[in-house]
Amino acid sequence: MEKVIANLKTLGIDMIHQANSGHPGIVLSAAPMLYTLYAKHMHINPKDPRWINRDRLVLSAGHGSALLYAVLYMVGFLTLKDLKEFRQLSSVTPGHPEYQVTPGVDMSTGPLGQGLATAVGMAMGEKHLQTKFPNYDLINYYVYCVCGDGDLMEGISYEAASLAGTLKLDNLIVLYDSNDTSLDGKTTGTFTEDVRERFDSMGWYTTVVRDGTNPKEIDKAIIRAKKSGLPSLIEVKTILGDGSLLANSHEAHGKPLTDEDITQLKKKLGMPQTPFYVDETALMSFREEVMKRSGDKYIAWQEAYENYINKECHGDETEFLKFYNRVIEFANHDKPFIKCETEATRVSNGKVLNFLASKTDLLFGGSADLFSSTKTYIQKGGDFGPTNYAGANIWFGVREHAMGAILNGLALTGYLPFGSTFLSFADYLKPAMRMSALMNLPVTYVFTHDSVSVGEDGPTHEPVEQLAMMRAIPNFNVYRPADFKEVLGVWNAIVTLQRPSAIALSRQDTPCLEKTDPAKVLHGGYIVREETTELGAVLIATGTEVSTCIKIAESLEKDGRGIRVVSMPSIELFLAMPKKYQYKILPVGVKTFFVEAGSSQGLRRFVTNDKYLITIDEFGASGKANDVLGKMNFQEEQIKKRIKELL
Amino acid sequence: MEKVIANLKTLGIDMIHQANSGHPGIVLSAAPMLYTLYAKHMHINPKDPRWINRDRLVLSAGHGSALLYAVLYMVGFLTLKDLKEFRQLSSVTPGHPEYQVTPGVDMSTGPLGQGLATAVGMAMGEKHLQTKFPNYDLINYYVYCVCGDGDLMEGISYEAASLAGTLKLDNLIVLYDSNDTSLDGKTTGTFTEDVRERFDSMGWYTTVVRDGTNPKEIDKAIIRAKKSGLPSLIEVKTILGDGSLLANSHEAHGKPLTDEDITQLKKKLGMPQTPFYVDETALMSFREEVMKRSGDKYIAWQEAYENYINKECHGDETEFLKFYNRVIEFANHDKPFIKCETEATRVSNGKVLNFLASKTDLLFGGSADLFSSTKTYIQKGGDFGPTNYAGANIWFGVREHAMGAILNGLALTGYLPFGSTFLSFADYLKPAMRMSALMNLPVTYVFTHDSVSVGEDGPTHEPVEQLAMMRAIPNFNVYRPADFKEVLGVWNAIVTLQRPSAIALSRQDTPCLEKTDPAKVLHGGYIVREETTELGAVLIATGTEVSTCIKIAESLEKDGRGIRVVSMPSIELFLAMPKKYQYKILPVGVKTFFVEAGSSQGLRRFVTNDKYLITIDEFGASGKANDVLGKMNFQEEQIKKRIKELL
Repeated sequence: MEKVIANLKTLGIDMIHQANSGHPGIVLSAAPMLYTLYAKHMHINPKDPRWINRDRLVLSAGHGSALLYAVLYMVGFLTLKDLKEFRQLSSVTPGHPEYQVTPGVDMSTGPLGQGLATAVGMAMGEKHLQTKFPNYDLINYYVYCVCGDGDLMEGISYEAASLAGTLKLDNLIVLYDSNDTSLDGKTTGTFTEDVRERFDSMGWYTTVVRDGTNPKEIDKAIIRAKKSGLPSLIEVKTILGDGSLLANSHEAHGKPLTDEDITQLKKKLGMPQTPFYVDETALMSFREEVMKRSGDKYIAWQEAYENYINKECHGDETEFLKFYNRVIEFANHDKPFIKCETEATRVSNGKVLNFLASKTDLLFGGSADLFSSTKTYIQKGGDFGPTNYAGANIWFGVREHAMGAILNGLALTGYLPFGSTFLSFADYLKPAMRMSALMNLPVTYVFTHDSVSVGEDGPTHEPVEQLAMMRAIPNFNVYRPADFKEVLGVWNAIVTLQRPSAIALSRQDTPCLEKTDPAKVLHGGYIVREETTELGAVLIATGTEVSTCIKIAESLEKDGRGIRVVSMPSIELFLAMPKKYQYKILPVGVKTFFVEAGSSQGLRRFVTNDKYLITIDEFGASGKANDVLGKMNFQEEQIKKRIKELL
Repeated sequence: MEKVIANLKTLGIDMIHQANSGHPGIVLSAAPMLYTLYAKHMHINPKDPRWINRDRLVLSAGHGSALLYAVLYMVGFLTLKDLKEFRQLSSVTPGHPEYQVTPGVDMSTGPLGQGLATAVGMAMGEKHLQTKFPNYDLINYYVYCVCGDGDLMEGISYEAASLAGTLKLDNLIVLYDSNDTSLDGKTTGTFTEDVRERFDSMGWYTTVVRDGTNPKEIDKAIIRAKKSGLPSLIEVKTILGDGSLLANSHEAHGKPLTDEDITQLKKKLGMPQTPFYVDETALMSFREEVMKRSGDKYIAWQEAYENYINKECHGDETEFLKFYNRVIEFANHDKPFIKCETEATRVSNGKVLNFLASKTDLLFGGSADLFSSTKTYIQKGGDFGPTNYAGANIWFGVREHAMGAILNGLALTGYLPFGSTFLSFADYLKPAMRMSALMNLPVTYVFTHDSVSVGEDGPTHEPVEQLAMMRAIPNFNVYRPADFKEVLGVWNAIVTLQRPSAIALSRQDTPCLEKTDPAKVLHGGYIVREETTELGAVLIATGTEVSTCIKIAESLEKDGRGIRVVSMPSIELFLAMPKKYQYKILPVGVKTFFVEAGSSQGLRRFVTNDKYLITIDEFGASGKANDVLGKMNFQEEQIKKRIKELL
């Protein structure tokens, strides 16, 4: 036991030394925690790293990657060669843990707070998943999370923890590496709250391990936590950089130890000086201990699984795998099932969501206290809560940021999750959206009230730059549909592509358009009004501006020039189409306008002159919607006049 | 007393009815709170709305604007006509409170949580300001904040509250309108924590008013809070929409009351049915009460002020006004005072900040637990804390979002505040940056580690889209200086323009360039390398890419084409220059490249073809900095090759 912990420490320190980069402090403080988790609690299988019923571990303090990789090596997920390539390009042991890069890593972490909040999502996912197989012991795993002071200072972790308390997630166990030290120094000047009391106030079980070097005490605390029936926070008092010459100082946090320090540390730990030394006896007995316990559960699970498949699926695995692989059948989009009519696209979206929910169990989501405005409530779904984990509607509370991270946790569980709020509050969850994009998770952010047409609520509630903000995120799709049919097409795209996405929807009514087409949403942009005479100009528009542009085109074409209108529900998808298609839709050399009630940033590529950008690049105002549009020079008549003058 | 409260309610309800838009629930629940604050505690002067020693009131629940305006009318800041124009374009009574639009409004609110966190900043500002006049009773005001469940669910309010507890801000009093109801319904499914216990755990004084309709109880609680010596949270139990037919239901939150409801409400309150009825007796006695108490303090303050000016400034107000009006004298930027040499621009920035701090008291800021990385510590400033409110360095903890809001609060106090973290974490404080921009506050966000050159820490720590995200914010300046001289120029611009700004700084060394010029930073972009033969191409670059481009230009010019290099530390400032200047720097018809280690979004306007954008539009990777650059096709040799092929 002592030997394994010592070896975890020396391996972690050697990795950091070899890379000349990394965070030794947490390696030395948290090694007993990671040891105890894997030796005594985690159920995993290195031969089946994606086993659906494995226990999850989220290292929210992602800078402790060296320690995590060391233990993943000890368990059998990684090789010694992998450890030697720590922090090198294209290795499976990057600077911070990366999902789908390293076997045994359950999520990408690094930006503080995200891990803990996502772990809450994973725990919610487990609870919900359990209800799908009521008579079978198929789903019964724990979500463990290791975090530090920094994670707990972040607002997102508070938001998620508060919700976890309300939801009584007893499958969530957080180990808090508590050493009163953060990057810059002691936390006495920054973080003096009583953390356990705070978690008590939120309905958590809390306990403390006063000697964080003692794995037996850590083990006992985890056992107590499991019996508590509540989400648990175990405060483990540790010494940052324990054993190093810099022990208990913030300088141990982020710089490789000196040669001298490593020498004395290894001596103190009773380990030889050889870099990457592995004590084979310790390794084998540890691996055996982990695999014995895990193996027992894995076999029991396999039996339960076979039992389930035989009894419920007549021996056919499809149903189960369907969930696991996120295969769903979506509506035949050629025949919209609900009448397309004049309505706000947020209303259309609610209809499509409800239809989709009737087709699949995979859809799972809710709203940050704006169901009544975003219209994303699943009518027959019931509410997710401690007395009904089968509920399909999640009430996130006014916690946009935690909502984003929780959606990531749900996607990591296997769902196609969505969450909704106003577009202007997309700002609050940008860090979580970035994590969706980095991990390539099929999360859908539903944003309504998508322009200054919000009106009376004024500039704080009127998005301007949010579409641009989201379009700048790599690996992220942004949709702004024009009517019901395009909303349908957007969800078809979301279900088909299963990528990180956002939808921007209108608060105000917009007509159903003749030529919009669900199937063409996958092309990103397509013609919704053909010119009736020789092409003189193209108007590209998105969302509610599409109908405006069609009216303008009808009117301006009377002057003799042919005017085409292109709806572009997704710029990303349009740019991913073959050039030939792009040129067909947007012929080179034709005067092209882009009309969108938001920032011009990112639209310039479609026009040859800034003047052809009919956009809103200043903050909105409070007033009747049409008055606000007038102030922004964005009423239909004003847009028409602007375009006419430029033709 | 009863009459004033009833009148506040009817005025608020009439305003919402007239606008056919607004939030009646909070008007009816929080009227006794607002009444008590103004009648018994607030020291204000409608004739001197910017009085530096006034008590501040932040309505964090900004949707309660109708109530706030009603009380501001009763006090004498607004007219009845203003109330009748509620939520109309260009009125002084917009949908949510707006700073510098409405006299008596101390900050813009609306996005939940921002108000409370900014109030913490205002309280910090008051504490610091007090230390500037040690022997004079010039600064001794309270910061009051009224918030609801939604504010307290937001992570940003937790972050700020935790810091406020550590800092023992006894000048901060928060009234919590506690009605167990949020927009979507009862909070039983979303927010069950014991809020007072949570605030206790963070070192606050907490108390409860069980009958929120009783102003005497509210008054007593505020008196207790003032004696506590700690930041205070007063939980005031109220009924949302009290008196309405929808009372105690979430439906009272955001929709105008029906005619029927208004009729019965007015009857219940003993008020006539006349819209916008004002009980003149109640109005006068209320106004008298407010002005008597405020007037006494105002006169005492004027005496203290005269005393101060006479004794300390020989009768010259300049010193004091200098603070108040934010006038400072910056270094003579023609003669940089410190040697320009090869170093990271974050290091240059630390030098300039320290120099600037030696020149002015106005600079006030710190870091979100990254002083040692962002290098923004003011060496001679001391640490701001409960035993030293004179300290100039704020230790925000790992609380980026609260840091942003607190900076807004400091700017509202009169400072030129700054806060620092890594550029990739700019995401965490986007909502606060937007508030800086909306209120036009002179806040500076200092972001270091500004590209994938961060290397080993990997994609979570490597900004890609953050410059684009910030450049899309209206009324916001983004700077990316090339070397020490440009850093100096950036701070000159910041001090001169006093606008919402961000600086992006490098982690890695970059050489001091021959032609960079602090004075020219104000032009946004300027030539740092003239072509030596006929102009064939222009390379625009920012930050560390400027030196790279100069080397590339030197090398490529050997092929015969003249190559100019333009440094563009601020796109916003460049675009604000006369067209003539812009064309001089960037001649039309010349092949122009933009080289920046970040998203291409927003740069397209400078080039004629996407190919000329040498940018990074995908996530980074973990590895040695140069290896990561190689993967991104962004090493010097690779960039040179790409440009050469296009020339």
